[in-house]
Amino acid sequence: MDERIEIDLNGKLTLPLRLLRTTVVAARTGWSDRLAAGQFLKIVDPCGKQAGDFWAFNAADPAEHLSAMHTRVWVNRLCPVPGESFHTNHRRPILQLVQDTCGVHDLLTAPCDEHRYRLYGVQGQHASCAGNFRAVMLPVLGGAPYIPQPVNLFMNVGVFPDGRVETGSCPSKPGDCVVLKAWIDCVVALSACPQDFNPVAGWYPTDLHVGIYEAA
Amino acid sequence: MDERIEIDLNGKLTLPLRLLRTTVVAARTGWSDRLAAGQFLKIVDPCGKQAGDFWAFNAADPAEHLSAMHTRVWVNRLCPVPGESFHTNHRRPILQLVQDTCGVHDLLTAPCDEHRYRLYGVQGQHASCAGNFRAVMLPVLGGAPYIPQPVNLFMNVGVFPDGRVETGSCPSKPGDCVVLKAWIDCVVALSACPQDFNPVAGWYPTDLHVGIYEAA
Repeated sequence: MDERIEIDLNGKLTLPLRLLRTTVVAARTGWSDRLAAGQFLKIVDPCGKQAGDFWAFNAADPAEHLSAMHTRVWVNRLCPVPGESFHTNHRRPILQLVQDTCGVHDLLTAPCDEHRYRLYGVQGQHASCAGNFRAVMLPVLGGAPYIPQPVNLFMNVGVFPDGRVETGSCPSKPGDCVVLKAWIDCVVALSACPQDFNPVAGWYPTDLHVGIYEAA
Repeated sequence: MDERIEIDLNGKLTLPLRLLRTTVVAARTGWSDRLAAGQFLKIVDPCGKQAGDFWAFNAADPAEHLSAMHTRVWVNRLCPVPGESFHTNHRRPILQLVQDTCGVHDLLTAPCDEHRYRLYGVQGQHASCAGNFRAVMLPVLGGAPYIPQPVNLFMNVGVFPDGRVETGSCPSKPGDCVVLKAWIDCVVALSACPQDFNPVAGWYPTDLHVGIYEAA
């Protein structure tokens, strides 16, 4: 047993976990891995204020993926809370949110991409979450796959009663994390957001840490 | 000149239009057509309380399409208001909203699909917006295309300060309409929502009317 996570599902529960592997997702880069059903994925923001764009696909059929528009109508919220699950475009759960020390995530806004940086005036290359997604998913999904709405972890997008949407500072503190449990075998992808034109990565992109665990 | 539309872009403007073609989109069915740059599309809810799931693609490159997640970050709202535009996944405008007599539309929830009706307990066939989309877009896009988040016209999805999302009754009155102006040549699709398990189509799906116009 390498670690314990505290799960808050209508009452605290401490679960012993065995670490299988861990990775540093360097600032501005992407990462992808496979997660077997029942395994846990922990995504940590070690420095704080760093958003991570996250995606998940059914490993057996990548046409089925975590879908924000299907998740919202299932949980009746903009984002699940611990105990609830992210759902797929086939309307079934893919990942349960079992721990969330930050509590602020966004399922409304697009991943940053080459078009976004061009509009900012960037003339040369600039890393982007869409580019990171393509790079890490190319060997898995092939071709230039469609990019679903990501779960923008630790990203703060407020919705106001008049329908206004506003991106604020990233609220995560150093060490904040989410832990997700896989309902099915899946392929997951994460981009440590390279955005340095607004506050979603604290104006200075930093690393994210990931760990994959099984119940001990 | 067949019709005038009143455009409210920081002051009223009446624009004479020439009708090119019109269609009744029968209750529970889908429709698709091409719209040249500069043409106008009017979608009318003749009976009221009827949601319509709407999509738009770049006619020259269907990998570029109206994207809710890119539109939100451009207009900084959950849905554009008259004068603002729906944007694509390439971060450029595709359709401007020039008239909107209802003012309530949803860009958060998934189109109803076969999985949704199965979860309701439907054992046989049930029309769905996803099925209608596939049927009308198959000849245009080929294969079984990915289904982007639709613009759910006349659909009332409230977002509360605590992040709760709730689908309410469809607020459109008989004759309510939206008028969209194409920025680029596009392929548009509409499904007169067959949902009869919740109030998005007033518990009794009815027809939608569409008209394509050019400036007279």
